[in-house]
Amino acid sequence: MTGRILIADGVPTNRIVLRVKLTSAFYDVQQASSGAEALALIRQERPDLVIASADLPDMEAEAFCSALQASAGLADMPLILLQRQTDPQARMAALAAGAEDVLGPQADDSVLLARLRSLLRDAHAEDELRLREDTRRALGLAEAPRAFETPPQVVIVPMGPLRGLAEAACRLRTRLGAVVRVLRPADIRTGLTGQPDVVVIADSGGAGDGLGLLAQLRASPGFRHLGLVYVAAPEARHLAASALDLGANDILADGLDPEELAVRLPRQVARKRTAERLRADMRDGLRAAVTDPLTGLYNRRYALPHLARLEERAVQTRRPYALLLADLDHFKQVNDSYGHAAGDQVLTEVAARLMQNLRAADLVARIGGEEFLIAMPDTGADQARRSAERICALVAAQPVALREAPQGVRVTLSIGLALRTPEATEGPEALLLQADRALYAAKHAGRNCARMAPLAPVPPRCSGGSVAAAGRGA
Amino acid sequence: MTGRILIADGVPTNRIVLRVKLTSAFYDVQQASSGAEALALIRQERPDLVIASADLPDMEAEAFCSALQASAGLADMPLILLQRQTDPQARMAALAAGAEDVLGPQADDSVLLARLRSLLRDAHAEDELRLREDTRRALGLAEAPRAFETPPQVVIVPMGPLRGLAEAACRLRTRLGAVVRVLRPADIRTGLTGQPDVVVIADSGGAGDGLGLLAQLRASPGFRHLGLVYVAAPEARHLAASALDLGANDILADGLDPEELAVRLPRQVARKRTAERLRADMRDGLRAAVTDPLTGLYNRRYALPHLARLEERAVQTRRPYALLLADLDHFKQVNDSYGHAAGDQVLTEVAARLMQNLRAADLVARIGGEEFLIAMPDTGADQARRSAERICALVAAQPVALREAPQGVRVTLSIGLALRTPEATEGPEALLLQADRALYAAKHAGRNCARMAPLAPVPPRCSGGSVAAAGRGA
Repeated sequence: MTGRILIADGVPTNRIVLRVKLTSAFYDVQQASSGAEALALIRQERPDLVIASADLPDMEAEAFCSALQASAGLADMPLILLQRQTDPQARMAALAAGAEDVLGPQADDSVLLARLRSLLRDAHAEDELRLREDTRRALGLAEAPRAFETPPQVVIVPMGPLRGLAEAACRLRTRLGAVVRVLRPADIRTGLTGQPDVVVIADSGGAGDGLGLLAQLRASPGFRHLGLVYVAAPEARHLAASALDLGANDILADGLDPEELAVRLPRQVARKRTAERLRADMRDGLRAAVTDPLTGLYNRRYALPHLARLEERAVQTRRPYALLLADLDHFKQVNDSYGHAAGDQVLTEVAARLMQNLRAADLVARIGGEEFLIAMPDTGADQARRSAERICALVAAQPVALREAPQGVRVTLSIGLALRTPEATEGPEALLLQADRALYAAKHAGRNCARMAPLAPVPPRCSGGSVAAAGRGA
Repeated sequence: MTGRILIADGVPTNRIVLRVKLTSAFYDVQQASSGAEALALIRQERPDLVIASADLPDMEAEAFCSALQASAGLADMPLILLQRQTDPQARMAALAAGAEDVLGPQADDSVLLARLRSLLRDAHAEDELRLREDTRRALGLAEAPRAFETPPQVVIVPMGPLRGLAEAACRLRTRLGAVVRVLRPADIRTGLTGQPDVVVIADSGGAGDGLGLLAQLRASPGFRHLGLVYVAAPEARHLAASALDLGANDILADGLDPEELAVRLPRQVARKRTAERLRADMRDGLRAAVTDPLTGLYNRRYALPHLARLEERAVQTRRPYALLLADLDHFKQVNDSYGHAAGDQVLTEVAARLMQNLRAADLVARIGGEEFLIAMPDTGADQARRSAERICALVAAQPVALREAPQGVRVTLSIGLALRTPEATEGPEALLLQADRALYAAKHAGRNCARMAPLAPVPPRCSGGSVAAAGRGA
């Protein structure tokens, strides 16, 4: 099944002829004999695309476009209108009202089929990137902006001398507020910089020089998501169908008509920007999956596999690494005295202090309510101990100012410290357990201090921001 | 900049001729005069594609392919080899060693350029879906499988009578273990079901009937990610270049050679499956972003925006909804007595009991270490109170069996309950605060009970799985 298409036409013969064409092109076809019937069927069946006669028995073509646009969830339904007589004015009105294309009686089947393929390709290309609304909200991703936030960026490439070029550029500027650049083919390699929304390739002769450039841009790593509009020279209308199959998002089959370009372009700009936003949402969503929304630190889900990687690297490089578990002391009292919002402020501030005072290579993660994990690659016992002492000191030294208590509230950390020496063979789980026991020892020793698990032979020292070796439950 | 291509050829004239062709096709070109120089440049510069002479001065073509394949991170670098003399045996060896294509002296520029575009398009199509290795690991996504886990699914569509068809199908079955179906064009619409990895469209005449089907499948919502291989009829080699631009992933330009098809096909199967896996990773990763990895419940990040949505719906429908905050009693004691692993088992079991005993429309989320949020749409005071009592009872009734304590450990929940009535106008934050205070009251009242925030005029009752209205700090 290569696509479901709904035909709306009041004339049975027309429907039959079109259905035969589409069926032999492997499409599944449904039929409606009026605009109203078509709209009802579209809402119910959600076809992939609609082909409607511009002469429906019960409504004007423009009204049909508008009704489709106004139906919930159907504004993106691709619609092709077929005119029985050429009527340029009605055509432009229908395009402006949302039809993707309006084909006249002289348009041949290859153009219709190429247009179908192009619309089906574009309409569903981004579906798999589309997040469920719940997920979007949960990840804090912004709503789609209604209007263009920045001016459309358009590049026009005339493949030779071209009538209407200046007027087209002017109309895009004044009507759409677009930033328009005209670029000669020879300057493409160096001049097609930045991130244009749409490139318009305008052929000026019948040789179809623009088709090669079109295929090339569509295949280019940096430009694959561009909107591409192909303008066929009037003497080479037949190239328009090829352009669609080569990856053009839209075509002007009859030369550079400035008005038609201005009517068609906004849809391509919107399509390109929507696709861009969906891809950005994906990336942001995946980043969100591994970070703690409150502090911006990595979360537990990220931290634990990261330890496994550090372990592998430590084995390869035969260099030690250090693991610190830091837990806020008496954090419950902050919440109980000042409320959860105050607790959040303390966590955020402590996270910021940790980030500012560790190296870029160190991992800082929030792995529990008030518990942080710090992993320090290439770090020996002395350096780890100094870091732990520094962290204790910098948290205790400066009270955290709160909206609820502007004078600030004093918080302290207890830290458990474990070292992975090149000789050791236990995995990251064992190291975590050692650090956890050392943390317990630090709490037991009066808090606001760090304790190191007894791996390396370190003489015990104690209390108030200093580090000592800690046995199980010491 | 439409792509960076490295040319490797020992003959300066060849390099110059090729460079001119590529530069005028808008590519950026780098050059190397030997295989060794090329490999060094590739490692350093990471071009988008490599074109190498099959007659390099310092190494055999096959050895060059293998060296590229063996270089870290370069196994996917697309490589085209150019033969000065036609040598079918060396050609097949190079294809098997990893070259994407081997073009003979008779291949014209249009084929070379179409092949370039096709390879550049495919090579980078999935880049933006590729997760950073750290993120992949963090989300618990599986490593890429080395071999095909299930047999390749191949459909061959002969556009007419075709020599070599039976032999080709047989070779794919025996050599690749593929499941091969032969489908006549007339049966495409109904017969192309399931999820084939690759469709081979084999033209049998010079009319290029297969190109229409190719473009169509590439555009079809259900088949856009298929591997598509086009086999040109020997008398219509020129169609091969068009096929690439229409979206074929690979071509056989000289009729259905069973051996060449068997050599080329595994790459297309692998490409299609890799792309599929990347897309699945994306979806799984995004799901992971809104769930708690331990219990599988939704996480805090998901729950809070969900409340906002319930609120909107409650305003629209003028129906009440209920919010429950459930907190395990004395959970720290479980961790301290039996260790963190035991605590995790308790959380998982409690989560499972909650899920089993609430409606599908209810949201259950883990929003803190031992704290659960339950949101119940269309739920009034009586129903919410009964649900809270039932939850308290079903957690307290049955001890949780632990690996560390097979006889089981008894755990209880305290629940704070707040109701959003149609008349109320405060937002979800206020409701959360009310539920939080009610939870505090339930803890204060001796735990293992539920308390309702004093919104509706409910007479106070108390203790042991029962519900009473709770004032602030009551």
